[in-house]
Amino acid sequence: MSYTSALFTSARYHTSREARDPNYRVLTPATINKSVLEAQYAVRGAIPLRAEELREKLESKGKDAGLPFEEIVSCNIGNPQQLDQKPLTFLRQISALTEYPDLISHPLSKDIFPSDALERARSLLEEIGSTGAYSHSMGVPSIRKRVANFIADRDGHAADPSKIYLTAGASAGVSNLLQLLISSPLDGVLIPIPQYPLYTAALALNAARPVPYFLNESAEWGLDIADVEKNIDKARHEGTNVKAMVVINPGNPTGNCLSLENMEDIVRVCYEHGLVLMADEVYQDNIYHPNRPFTSFKKVLKGMGAPYADNVELVSFHSISKGQTGECGRRGGYFEICNFSPEAEEQVYKLASIQLCPSLGGQIGVDVLVAPPQEGDPSYAQWREEKDGIARTLKHRSEVLVEAFRELEGVSCNEAEGAMYLFPTISLPPKAIAAAKAAGQSPDAFYSLRLLEATGICVVPGSGFGQQPGTWHFRTTFLAPGTEDYVRRLKKFHEEFMQEHKE
Amino acid sequence: MSYTSALFTSARYHTSREARDPNYRVLTPATINKSVLEAQYAVRGAIPLRAEELREKLESKGKDAGLPFEEIVSCNIGNPQQLDQKPLTFLRQISALTEYPDLISHPLSKDIFPSDALERARSLLEEIGSTGAYSHSMGVPSIRKRVANFIADRDGHAADPSKIYLTAGASAGVSNLLQLLISSPLDGVLIPIPQYPLYTAALALNAARPVPYFLNESAEWGLDIADVEKNIDKARHEGTNVKAMVVINPGNPTGNCLSLENMEDIVRVCYEHGLVLMADEVYQDNIYHPNRPFTSFKKVLKGMGAPYADNVELVSFHSISKGQTGECGRRGGYFEICNFSPEAEEQVYKLASIQLCPSLGGQIGVDVLVAPPQEGDPSYAQWREEKDGIARTLKHRSEVLVEAFRELEGVSCNEAEGAMYLFPTISLPPKAIAAAKAAGQSPDAFYSLRLLEATGICVVPGSGFGQQPGTWHFRTTFLAPGTEDYVRRLKKFHEEFMQEHKE
Repeated sequence: MSYTSALFTSARYHTSREARDPNYRVLTPATINKSVLEAQYAVRGAIPLRAEELREKLESKGKDAGLPFEEIVSCNIGNPQQLDQKPLTFLRQISALTEYPDLISHPLSKDIFPSDALERARSLLEEIGSTGAYSHSMGVPSIRKRVANFIADRDGHAADPSKIYLTAGASAGVSNLLQLLISSPLDGVLIPIPQYPLYTAALALNAARPVPYFLNESAEWGLDIADVEKNIDKARHEGTNVKAMVVINPGNPTGNCLSLENMEDIVRVCYEHGLVLMADEVYQDNIYHPNRPFTSFKKVLKGMGAPYADNVELVSFHSISKGQTGECGRRGGYFEICNFSPEAEEQVYKLASIQLCPSLGGQIGVDVLVAPPQEGDPSYAQWREEKDGIARTLKHRSEVLVEAFRELEGVSCNEAEGAMYLFPTISLPPKAIAAAKAAGQSPDAFYSLRLLEATGICVVPGSGFGQQPGTWHFRTTFLAPGTEDYVRRLKKFHEEFMQEHKE
Repeated sequence: MSYTSALFTSARYHTSREARDPNYRVLTPATINKSVLEAQYAVRGAIPLRAEELREKLESKGKDAGLPFEEIVSCNIGNPQQLDQKPLTFLRQISALTEYPDLISHPLSKDIFPSDALERARSLLEEIGSTGAYSHSMGVPSIRKRVANFIADRDGHAADPSKIYLTAGASAGVSNLLQLLISSPLDGVLIPIPQYPLYTAALALNAARPVPYFLNESAEWGLDIADVEKNIDKARHEGTNVKAMVVINPGNPTGNCLSLENMEDIVRVCYEHGLVLMADEVYQDNIYHPNRPFTSFKKVLKGMGAPYADNVELVSFHSISKGQTGECGRRGGYFEICNFSPEAEEQVYKLASIQLCPSLGGQIGVDVLVAPPQEGDPSYAQWREEKDGIARTLKHRSEVLVEAFRELEGVSCNEAEGAMYLFPTISLPPKAIAAAKAAGQSPDAFYSLRLLEATGICVVPGSGFGQQPGTWHFRTTFLAPGTEDYVRRLKKFHEEFMQEHKE
C-alpha cells in the first residue's frame, strides 16, 4: 500500500491526531495513568534531584562553582557502597568466579582465591549452569533450600523452599505482592506513619488506599495496638476494604525495633481482622542494642501456636541491599510466604514467571548472605572481621549523630536500635514556617533544602515519609564517612537557621 | 495491651475473619486482583511445567523413570546459555573484574586477563564506583552515553543519553511503559498476532484491551496495513481507546524481519491515528538473511522527515538476553524514547526511580553489548570468532529444522529471517482435533503435549501466542544442540501421531 492510499484509508476513519496538529502527543498529563501521576517517591524526589544538580556543578566547575561546600554528602538513601562501605570480600570472590568460570580452573587462581571460595563457586555453578541463563522463576532451587535452612536456623521453625521466592531486591517482591492483593480501588493496606515511601508509591501505582497507623515517637517508635484497631475500624466504616498490614521492623525511617508484645499484638490483629501481614525485615542484620534484638514475625507467629501459627497469612521480605552486605546495586532479596492458600500461591508463582527471574548475580548474593563462611573455613576470619567492622562503624556513627542532634536547639532524636537511619524532630519557629509557606514548601522540606544549599548535606524531609500533623522531621542515613565534619556543618547551619527565623 | 483486651477490642468491631473460621484466608480467587488471575504466560505455562516434572523424574530415577527419552530438550524459551551457548569471554572478563576490583590490580592478573579487559574494567569502575551501589535510576550516565553512540552509529541519527533508560531486560521496560500508558480499562494497545505473550500478560495486568492485528504467514509474516487500520477502526467503534501499537521486529514467535515498506506504513499509521509506537527490537542482532537486514524504527522514523520524525512517540527496546550475547540471567537491557512530551518523560523517570535501578551486572552487560572490542584491540579476534561462531551455529540449526519441518506431512514453515524461533503450521486431521476436544485441550496444545511425552522435546503451542482461527502452530527455538537428534525424534513422533489420527 502506498503512502497516499494509507492516508486515504485513515482519512475515512476517526483519528486521534486531532485537527492534524503535528505537535499532538498521545502521552500527556490528561492521558497518562492517573495512578502513576499520583505516585510519589521522596527518597529520590526534589531535594535529591537538586543535590544531583549541585554535584554536577561541583564536578564540572570545582571551586569556581561558588558553592559553600566542596562535596555533596548523600544521606538521603541507604546506599552504603556509594559511600565508603567496602563490599564483603567473600561475596565478591564468589561473584567474580561464577561470572568467569575459567578463573576457577586457572592454575594461578589458587594463588589469588581462598580454597573455600573456589569450592563454593564450583558447586554453585554446578547447580546454576551459567549465570547468563534464566533460572527457575522462583530462583535457583538449591539457593532457595539454603534460604530455608537460614530461616529455620534463625527462627527455630521449619521453612519450606517451595514457599520462598528470590527477588530483585525487597522492593520488587513488595510490588508483586501488592499487585496481587489489590483488586479494587476500595482496597486498603495499613501502613505505618512514618513509612518508607515505597509503600505509598506502590499503593498509588495499584490505585489502593493507604490506611495509616501512627508510630509513637515518645515510645521509641512503638505502636499502640488499640490505635491500629481504631484506624481499621474507621477505614472500614468509610468503605475501605482493609486487606493487609505492612510492618517495617527494624523501622525505616524510624530506626526502631518493635517489642515482642507489639509484634504479638500485630499478629492477633491480623488474625482477628483478616489481614495479610507484610513484614519488611530488610534491616534484620542492622541491630545496635543488645536489649532490642531482631525477632522475625515468622518466629513470633509460629511461637504463638493455634489459631495464629497456621492461619495468619504472612509474607516476610529480606534483602542483600542492607545489613553488612550492602549490595544495593546487585538487586537481590527474597520473600517467604506462610499460610497462603494454594490458589494464592499459584498466582504468586505466575507473577514471578511473567518477570522471568531475578538476576543470577542477585541470587548468588542471597546465597552468600544466607550461607556465609563458617568457623574453620579459610575465609571465615576475614569475613568476620569485615562484617563486625562495618557493624561497629555504623553503630559509632549513629551515636555521634544522635548526640549532636540532641544538642541542637529544638531538635530531639531517638537512638537507632536498628536499620541505618535517624529521624530527628525539629521544632521549627513560626517565622520559619511562614517562610516555608511563602516559598510554597512544607516546613521540613524548606529546612532540608536550606540545609542542602548551605552544607551539601542531602537528607529527606519527614513529609516524604509521613509524620504526626504539626511535627517536622528529616531522615538521614548514618552511613556517610566524616561524621565529625557532618556534625560541624549541620550545627553551624542549624544555629544560623534558627537565628535567622527567630521572632 | 494484653491478649484479652486485644480480643475484646476487636470483638467490638466488624472483623473479616468470618464466623471466626480459623481457616479463613484473605487471599482467595474471589479476592485476588482479577487482572493477575486473568494474565497468562504460555512460555512458562502448563507444558513447560510438565517438562519440569519430567526432568525431575529423569534426574531422580534415570532409566527407571520409564520414559521413552533420556533428557528434556527445552525449546520453549529463548535461553541460549541454558543450552550449549558459551558466554562471550570479553563480557565475562569485564564482569569478573568489576565484581572483584582487587583482581584488576593483582600482579597475576596480567597473566590471566587481556590488557583491554583490565583497562575497560578499570575505567568502568571509575565511572560506577561499586557494582554494589545503586546507580542513577536511569542507569550509569557514562553507559547511557555509550548506548547513545551505539544507536547513533547504527542509525545515522543522533541519540540523546537523557532519553535512554537502562532496564532489567526488555520485559521490565515494556511493563513500565504499558503501566504509564494505560489509564482506563477502555484503553487498548495494538499487538501482533501471533505475539510474544509478555504483551498480553502485561496488558492483562494493567487491565487494558489487546487490539489484535494479524501477521500474514503466507507473506513471510508481514502485515497488511489496511487490515491494521480496519482493526483500529473496529476497536474504536467498540469504545476502545487505542493508544499504542506494539511491533516485534525481528518477530517473536514468527522469526521474520519486516519490510521497509511495512515499517514506513506503521509509522504513518501511528502518526495518523495518534498511537505510541512500541518497537520490540531485542532480536536486532539475530539476522540470517542478507536481503532482510535489520533496520530500526528509529532510523525509519527519522528518515521519513516531517511531520513524522519529530512527532511520532516511539519507544524502542533492546536487551542483552538475545543476539549472540544471550545473557538472559543477567537481566539487562535499555529503551530509548523519542518525541515524548516533557511531562511524559518526567513520569517515565519517576517510575524508574521507584524501582531504584537495574542491576549493575546487567548495566555492565549493556555496556559491553554497545561497545565491544574494536579491531586492533587485544580481545577483538576472540570476540569476533565467538560471536560469528554463535551466529553461524544458529543459522545452521534453523535451516536444518526448517527443512525437516517441510518434509513432515501437513506441516509448513517459513524460514527464519531473524530472532531464534520457528513457528511451523500443522494441519491436524479431524480425528486429532476431536481427541484434543475430548481431552479438554486446544489441538495445538494436545499435539505439543503428546510431543513432549513421547520425545522430551518441549515446545509452546501456537495458542499461547495467538494464531489465525482454525490454524495450529507451535513455537520452537533453534538453540538446542543435537539438531539431527531433535529432527529424528520429531519425525518419528509426527508420523506416528498422524498415523494414529488418520480417518
